[in-house]
Amino acid sequence: MPGRPGLRIGLIGAGFMGKAHAIGFATARTAFDLPMDIELRTVADITEEAAAAAAGKFGFARWTGDWRTMVRDPEIDLIDITAPNALHREMALAAIAAGKHVYCEKPLATNVPDAREMADAAEARGVKTQVGFNYLCNPVLRLAKEMIAAGELGRIRSYRGLHCEDYMADPGSPFGFRHEPEGGGALADIGSHALATAEFLLGPVAEVMGDCATVIAERPDGRGGRRRVEVDDIARAFLRFESGATGSVEASWVATGRKMQHDFEVYGSEGSLAFSQERLNELRFYSAADAPGRRGFRRIEAAPEHPPYGNFCVAPGHQIGFNDLKAIEVAGFVDALAGLGPEPFGFRGGLRIQTLVEAIRRSSAERRWIGASTR
Amino acid sequence: MPGRPGLRIGLIGAGFMGKAHAIGFATARTAFDLPMDIELRTVADITEEAAAAAAGKFGFARWTGDWRTMVRDPEIDLIDITAPNALHREMALAAIAAGKHVYCEKPLATNVPDAREMADAAEARGVKTQVGFNYLCNPVLRLAKEMIAAGELGRIRSYRGLHCEDYMADPGSPFGFRHEPEGGGALADIGSHALATAEFLLGPVAEVMGDCATVIAERPDGRGGRRRVEVDDIARAFLRFESGATGSVEASWVATGRKMQHDFEVYGSEGSLAFSQERLNELRFYSAADAPGRRGFRRIEAAPEHPPYGNFCVAPGHQIGFNDLKAIEVAGFVDALAGLGPEPFGFRGGLRIQTLVEAIRRSSAERRWIGASTR
Amino acid sequence: MPGRPGLRIGLIGAGFMGKAHAIGFATARTAFDLPMDIELRTVADITEEAAAAAAGKFGFARWTGDWRTMVRDPEIDLIDITAPNALHREMALAAIAAGKHVYCEKPLATNVPDAREMADAAEARGVKTQVGFNYLCNPVLRLAKEMIAAGELGRIRSYRGLHCEDYMADPGSPFGFRHEPEGGGALADIGSHALATAEFLLGPVAEVMGDCATVIAERPDGRGGRRRVEVDDIARAFLRFESGATGSVEASWVATGRKMQHDFEVYGSEGSLAFSQERLNELRFYSAADAPGRRGFRRIEAAPEHPPYGNFCVAPGHQIGFNDLKAIEVAGFVDALAGLGPEPFGFRGGLRIQTLVEAIRRSSAERRWIGASTR
Amino acid sequence: MPGRPGLRIGLIGAGFMGKAHAIGFATARTAFDLPMDIELRTVADITEEAAAAAAGKFGFARWTGDWRTMVRDPEIDLIDITAPNALHREMALAAIAAGKHVYCEKPLATNVPDAREMADAAEARGVKTQVGFNYLCNPVLRLAKEMIAAGELGRIRSYRGLHCEDYMADPGSPFGFRHEPEGGGALADIGSHALATAEFLLGPVAEVMGDCATVIAERPDGRGGRRRVEVDDIARAFLRFESGATGSVEASWVATGRKMQHDFEVYGSEGSLAFSQERLNELRFYSAADAPGRRGFRRIEAAPEHPPYGNFCVAPGHQIGFNDLKAIEVAGFVDALAGLGPEPFGFRGGLRIQTLVEAIRRSSAERRWIGASTR
Repeated sequence: MPGRPGLRIGLIGAGFMGKAHAIGFATARTAFDLPMDIELRTVADITEEAAAAAAGKFGFARWTGDWRTMVRDPEIDLIDITAPNALHREMALAAIAAGKHVYCEKPLATNVPDAREMADAAEARGVKTQVGFNYLCNPVLRLAKEMIAAGELGRIRSYRGLHCEDYMADPGSPFGFRHEPEGGGALADIGSHALATAEFLLGPVAEVMGDCATVIAERPDGRGGRRRVEVDDIARAFLRFESGATGSVEASWVATGRKMQHDFEVYGSEGSLAFSQERLNELRFYSAADAPGRRGFRRIEAAPEHPPYGNFCVAPGHQIGFNDLKAIEVAGFVDALAGLGPEPFGFRGGLRIQTLVEAIRRSSAERRWIGASTR
Repeated sequence: MPGRPGLRIGLIGAGFMGKAHAIGFATARTAFDLPMDIELRTVADITEEAAAAAAGKFGFARWTGDWRTMVRDPEIDLIDITAPNALHREMALAAIAAGKHVYCEKPLATNVPDAREMADAAEARGVKTQVGFNYLCNPVLRLAKEMIAAGELGRIRSYRGLHCEDYMADPGSPFGFRHEPEGGGALADIGSHALATAEFLLGPVAEVMGDCATVIAERPDGRGGRRRVEVDDIARAFLRFESGATGSVEASWVATGRKMQHDFEVYGSEGSLAFSQERLNELRFYSAADAPGRRGFRRIEAAPEHPPYGNFCVAPGHQIGFNDLKAIEVAGFVDALAGLGPEPFGFRGGLRIQTLVEAIRRSSAERRWIGASTR
Repeated sequence: MPGRPGLRIGLIGAGFMGKAHAIGFATARTAFDLPMDIELRTVADITEEAAAAAAGKFGFARWTGDWRTMVRDPEIDLIDITAPNALHREMALAAIAAGKHVYCEKPLATNVPDAREMADAAEARGVKTQVGFNYLCNPVLRLAKEMIAAGELGRIRSYRGLHCEDYMADPGSPFGFRHEPEGGGALADIGSHALATAEFLLGPVAEVMGDCATVIAERPDGRGGRRRVEVDDIARAFLRFESGATGSVEASWVATGRKMQHDFEVYGSEGSLAFSQERLNELRFYSAADAPGRRGFRRIEAAPEHPPYGNFCVAPGHQIGFNDLKAIEVAGFVDALAGLGPEPFGFRGGLRIQTLVEAIRRSSAERRWIGASTR
Repeated sequence: MPGRPGLRIGLIGAGFMGKAHAIGFATARTAFDLPMDIELRTVADITEEAAAAAAGKFGFARWTGDWRTMVRDPEIDLIDITAPNALHREMALAAIAAGKHVYCEKPLATNVPDAREMADAAEARGVKTQVGFNYLCNPVLRLAKEMIAAGELGRIRSYRGLHCEDYMADPGSPFGFRHEPEGGGALADIGSHALATAEFLLGPVAEVMGDCATVIAERPDGRGGRRRVEVDDIARAFLRFESGATGSVEASWVATGRKMQHDFEVYGSEGSLAFSQERLNELRFYSAADAPGRRGFRRIEAAPEHPPYGNFCVAPGHQIGFNDLKAIEVAGFVDALAGLGPEPFGFRGGLRIQTLVEAIRRSSAERRWIGASTR
């Protein structure tokens, strides 16, 4: 679209999430009428060679093995961080210092002080930020939030959220950065998604009671030995919301057979919702207002009535995929950068999730309820 | 079957559960080769008239408005109690004192001391007992237990159980015996089922952390006024099993839209199970031993391979119903009475569930973990 | 219920369906307020011994190895036939001649002339009849019929019905009466159910186009040899209804993995229904009258609002089973016998289904459309 | 990727499917290691203005209101046609004459002679072609085909395919090009997908018996009047495959509530598959080789084991969407253009589908079976 301002991207990291972001950029440009013109300027990876390969594949014009140089490049507007979690802080702070907007994969940081430092720095410098809680971008989650806000379920009474997968179910899978005592564990890795969804739908949590368990006590250290695991494989929490509703979340990365059980159920006085990310294009809705004898959970399929589904397909029920959620995330952030709306989920939001994660972890360790109110 | 000893039944209560028991007796007689000949001798209800009507409908030979007389009738072998919970203790103790076997609807009692007194009395008198946790009688629950015991799931790591319905979701539904401070609440009423299933499958719970919430603070008192409700509408608990597995249960009677969400998921190192009472004839099984690229939760439909399904139908997938679970419960107790097996779920089991219910309730009130080990 | 007239039953056959009928009688007596008092008078089987055993198990007062004598017994009011299909005609005609009401398992007969003779004989003699198309007794099928009749789906445009199972999928399963050239085949055995449901819901079929296929050309003859199979293993038909709607049915007994795929979908101008007997307590309903963005197939669970579900359970969603459908069938016929309603599905209905089966079979052989109108 | 040959695209049409193609190109470039470098050269639409807008949105370098000029542009290698069906022939022939490869949305043409002329012309000129039957690109459909070919289901006995939607269910939706007597109708529009899937999985169809019905006899003509509709709203066909298997397909665009019911079930002697495009990332598989009492349809979720799912996501169960199917289609065609494999579904394939469509339509009109063998 001639005349649109440009948005020059510098991507750090070309792994699983780096590719998802690259597809997200490519799709967002085509599917949305973006107010800015995304330019894939530079990709940085651990080596020049890896970066060069990524540039070719993902369509970046330049590449580098040195992210530190890239974040200071005056021809880059936005730094996109998909590197390992422990590096997020340093990278983001450098980018912020250079006046760049920052798009960072979740979790924002490995601890609350780091996350707070990052959020404070961005606000102080006046740059805009985004953390990659992409499940929130799902059109049917937005529908759920809208229905709750509009009172279609009546007064909300109860919530149950999950995020269970099985990618760490095998005791033979080696100790990695996700098992590091600081920042590691199923709760931080995927429970964070469950917490983000819970607050997205029901508003702030006031108090938590956690129960974390380590199921696989040791893992191969990749050097022929074994290393003790201290972080949680399974984490559960009771939640008291500021609204008065009660609920729970559960995270597990040892849930054999589950690949994407990011699910929730919300019960209100007049209706209920049920969702599973296993069928991410469907929302189930029970309305007590339906006629007697005709009530039941109805399966609403994502359709153009549920923005921004229509940006992907004008026909209902054709379904979007995981990478499309990233494209929606990108489009929302670009709108914010162009001044068309608030940051969808900025560093302040990432800090909030980290705060909840640590409250649950501490609650579990101390075996008592912990306050987590935003008030 | 000529020559079988007789089992003369005296039923107390002819409401919802009284009828379910009557259908259960009728079906059990026909579907099973029972070792004893069930005779529907006498039914007792609040009035002579109600009892007479029930006798005609349910096929009892006699009726009475006075259960106290009935429990002493020398021509009755078994007293079956489906009266309101608060009466269970007095009725059961009277029946035990008269040397009768006792079949009592759940919950066994409204508090632990009463339940213990009942269990002790039955054992002291040498009579046999049964508490009506009929969901355990489901052929696919038996299959689940057998698969777990046989190691088909590997080492069990995690459990999640529910029992959610919506029969108290309407704030206009009046205060009743289920709301009485002693013995009332969703946890006691239906959470007890979730707890029974949890221990049935994974063995004893060692420790609980509860979270109970009252959602509807007042209900009509049926006399034009309103009465304060103190019992839980929603109850959640973390569970630590003696085996080391961790888990949770949730009970709610305000889960709008849910009619029979007695569900569980069990995750082991080699496989998993998922069940919903909403489709009580199905068990979902994921096996990590399936070939790569061919794995997935498989829907096992109840079939003659899953006893005692075959007593109802020789063809697979034809499905049994709720009342058939009662027939299985009856058949199991009759076998025990004939000395062919242990009591499937006697008063000692009912006491155990009551103990767990109270531990969870106390844990919630005191906001701390409570031990509940059987050791 | 004192004072009710008696209905004395003589049952022929004590196999799979004989037991289902026995359970049906027992349950119907308890679950329904029947206008007549069912008495299980006599059971007849091939031998005196088999009949004696069945009498003990099923609760019949008497037994016999000679059905011919039984059908003339003046102390019997109703003859219930669950013997092999080829015997239905002789047994039913004898019972009718003796002035008995007749309850006959489906299919009514092995050919149209026999079925017509039976229907004519019953009407001439003035006795009442019932054929066992029990799937029609399902509360949610009744709901479906009622919704269609009330116009909740608008004008009906399209129908698709199935009845697929896999009990003949194994080429090693021997040649039996279901493979006999006359009266055999998947179409007659289970396609008849699919046809009964189609007409139950949409009214009479006017014209059919059939396609029958034999998949397993030979089966063991049980005597060490093999026998050629001529009947269909799979049958499909296009249907033109008298109403103008079009549709199809399919029957297969070689559908590996299917145990009870008696399914249908009905599409109207304003809404649709979908049903699967695999979940016999659920009906899916899509209404175009729902609000935009909130439409979807809703899962209606069987509940007391859907008679006669409430006869089995006062709580919704607790579910009835296969044998309960037989109990409903019994109750409907007893009502008819007491003059409280029309015969739910008499011999005239059984003849109709046989007529459709043969029209489809002939259509397939002649590779052309065949009229089957009732006009 | 430096050094790759370029593939310069000229797209005709910027509507629903034009956008899907544009997203497909963008995603394919990023998700796949393509052997050629896709360049979005020129987009043509009805007006210069529309084309200019599309160029901006979809990332094309140039635009034009005159497709005829574009197809002769020596700097374009591939013409991609997403214009209305009636224009496919003229556009494709012009592109072929200019020596361009052609990617054409389905249906290839509005009649068999046109389709044959197009296929012949492409082969004579030596250009490569692709028709957009994108549902075949689904990783789980490829899995299904592979399982069938490998004998995992044993000998295939039966097939049932559907493609039902409701986009023409409203009698008020106006007469459009899909209602034109030549080339119109549900069978051509979406039944073609069902036929393509049937032959993709089971091989060539030998004979068909069709049944087509017009449900809405007139539609608004968009000029205040009404126009008679002659094409089918619903089409059904029996299929005899060359392999000996039998089956059926059904297409409907008046299936109220259905948005994407592109479903199939395949039954073999040793196993079965069931699929619904409503959940396009799942394949259900029943294996008779599973242990007794443990059999059931298992839900296989798309995962990296099922190429090319892994190009989109390295984690299983995260799900691809409708537009990703287009990206796979693009990638397959680019591979073919680079000489790395056969054309996935060229004009010869499009002709085949058109042949089947017309055979079914003629069969319906003549009310008789019609041969359609490829032999």
